[in-house]
Amino acid sequence: MTVIAEHTRAAARDLEHVVQYFQTYRAGVPDNEVVADLTFGNPHEQPLPELVATLHKHTDPQATDWFAYKLSEAHAREAVAKGLSDELGLAFAPEDIAMTRGAFGAIALAFSLLLEPGDECVFSVPGWFLYETVLTDRNAVTVKVPLKPDTHDLDVDAIEAALTPRTRIVIVNSPHNPTGVVYSQERLEELAQMLRRKSEEFGRPIFILSDEPYRRIRFDGTPFTSPANVYPWTLIDYSYGKVLLAPGLRLGYLAFCPDMPDDTRAELAAAAMRSQLATGHAFPDAVLQYAAEDLESISIDIAAYERKRDRMYNALTQWGYEMTAPAGTFYLWGKAPDGDATAFTAALAEKGVFIAPGTLFECPGDFRISLTASEDMIEASLPAFQAISPSATKA
Amino acid sequence: MTVIAEHTRAAARDLEHVVQYFQTYRAGVPDNEVVADLTFGNPHEQPLPELVATLHKHTDPQATDWFAYKLSEAHAREAVAKGLSDELGLAFAPEDIAMTRGAFGAIALAFSLLLEPGDECVFSVPGWFLYETVLTDRNAVTVKVPLKPDTHDLDVDAIEAALTPRTRIVIVNSPHNPTGVVYSQERLEELAQMLRRKSEEFGRPIFILSDEPYRRIRFDGTPFTSPANVYPWTLIDYSYGKVLLAPGLRLGYLAFCPDMPDDTRAELAAAAMRSQLATGHAFPDAVLQYAAEDLESISIDIAAYERKRDRMYNALTQWGYEMTAPAGTFYLWGKAPDGDATAFTAALAEKGVFIAPGTLFECPGDFRISLTASEDMIEASLPAFQAISPSATKA
Repeated sequence: MTVIAEHTRAAARDLEHVVQYFQTYRAGVPDNEVVADLTFGNPHEQPLPELVATLHKHTDPQATDWFAYKLSEAHAREAVAKGLSDELGLAFAPEDIAMTRGAFGAIALAFSLLLEPGDECVFSVPGWFLYETVLTDRNAVTVKVPLKPDTHDLDVDAIEAALTPRTRIVIVNSPHNPTGVVYSQERLEELAQMLRRKSEEFGRPIFILSDEPYRRIRFDGTPFTSPANVYPWTLIDYSYGKVLLAPGLRLGYLAFCPDMPDDTRAELAAAAMRSQLATGHAFPDAVLQYAAEDLESISIDIAAYERKRDRMYNALTQWGYEMTAPAGTFYLWGKAPDGDATAFTAALAEKGVFIAPGTLFECPGDFRISLTASEDMIEASLPAFQAISPSATKA
Repeated sequence: MTVIAEHTRAAARDLEHVVQYFQTYRAGVPDNEVVADLTFGNPHEQPLPELVATLHKHTDPQATDWFAYKLSEAHAREAVAKGLSDELGLAFAPEDIAMTRGAFGAIALAFSLLLEPGDECVFSVPGWFLYETVLTDRNAVTVKVPLKPDTHDLDVDAIEAALTPRTRIVIVNSPHNPTGVVYSQERLEELAQMLRRKSEEFGRPIFILSDEPYRRIRFDGTPFTSPANVYPWTLIDYSYGKVLLAPGLRLGYLAFCPDMPDDTRAELAAAAMRSQLATGHAFPDAVLQYAAEDLESISIDIAAYERKRDRMYNALTQWGYEMTAPAGTFYLWGKAPDGDATAFTAALAEKGVFIAPGTLFECPGDFRISLTASEDMIEASLPAFQAISPSATKA
């Protein structure tokens, strides 16, 4: 007889395919036989020296309460509100910012704030493989809507068809994991118009949770529009873990769009602090909150990521792979030869190259490459891709 | 119309009296008029130099994946399992340890693992003022049982009377916040025997959650027995935040008693990792996990706390206060003159001395003093206590 609560077992079931892959994909492979690990958005080079220096700086206590209990600290909220206001052209107040343990913590907080058991949350697939497990853990209902084939754009009509009076949240993730698509202002305005209409029809607001951890990782000068720019009922989640390539340091935020009615903003801010307490003191650690202002201006070298993207994208398309050219994120999304991502992943693994199969994203015919590997690793991985490429197989 | 989910609003309601006190107790008081803040277990002196040195040491990256995604890391679990096994005389395996963000995170994890909506959790009052809000947030049911009057010992008969087939957890907090009582092995064995009998009657185990963050803060050579020593169905939560007096650095663990059946231990360990993911990546930050082994042997000066306890206890009892002599924790618990903690707290506040009124602990006739203030602050606070003491008022 199990002793584990049903909601936790249900959440674990949703997660199991991810855990299984994560725990087994390199099992039994000696480190010296790993040519390139292109699976997850993890660092494969030394951390940014500026990041390390900033952590040291804020580890040195400057007051007796340096390591006292922290909530969402004023200096961190001010730094975020200023940075985000400049970036999006919206006037965020410090009170609109809840400091969280990365975007993951912010997503969990948004769900706590808005979702009762049985409430519905809509997101697009392919999409991040952990939304559903967080929803299931709260006995909320996951509703998945496919992105448009080929363009991977938001399908606003399909989202509309999925809405019900129980829909509380539509998640928009731009730049998009795993496809790298950045949604246009036009498409987001179309979505906003539809959500305004449906919110009126249902008699209460449908919120957008704008999942923006890759917001600052864009290529080719691609502009960025946040849903918050076009739809007031928007909560933004963000993580510093992507742009610092340091996901083991948990710092992020949930921001409430300043275009919401003032009483709703105030209600969300008050409830956020209380919910973060009630869910186990879900605030970032002291050192990271002190560092927030400095961290606003530290980043991986985006130009280097653009070069890695170009090298990989050009090589793979040249060898006959059908790839999506990402405008942002550090991922590349493509179609597996013969539409079988599991076989393709296994064939690459035999050559010491590890990728994320589309099965993790409910797209068993596709695959994802993470460009967080070093340039050397990416270069070293190319022969494996070439050897089993569509061109090679045809030849 | 509110946009906030009912479970979050309900949790906030349970918390409101604590938030209100926390936000207002020093409002409008200039820092230079604060003689002593004896309210919460927060530091009022510089952090331990060994702690700061350890944080610096583990901030320096020793591998490319230093700040990669972290779960419950092997080296941290090993260090904890070794330390805890030595301390309690039980054979914890690394797999029995889930690394958490302090004891608060571990309590939240234990609730996630074991409680369905509607399940009941029993704890004693006075007790920590945040158990209930965490339970309410999960739609679990709080059941409060008074400690024995005067001795503040566990009332095993009263706990038994509160048990139902929906009871899943009994929380035992020793050394006890706020009274400082350390429960005897005899009393814990009595509790264990009763819980064995009731578990059999109900056909499934009732768990003890042993909330032990003050375990290493004991005086006069008082011995410590963990419920895990006498009852196999025990989960231990622990925080390094107390013994380091650094609650803004969130590191702790949930440990599964090795005397539980092996399949239950394995089930708990597997579910813990998945639940920590599903609740928003609730693992401690990378630096703190690397530091865990070093932190096992760093501590505030317990002898200094014993001196602070003696000074304060002796002074207050001499002036006619009825105080409980704490065997552990860094708190002192006493009866407010005339049984009115609110008036007593206000009278002290006028003299620049701040304490926690018993209203925070559902004991409106009592008060709590935190000894985490400096020796100078404690000394400076004494005239205020003397001026409005039972002896002074009688005279």
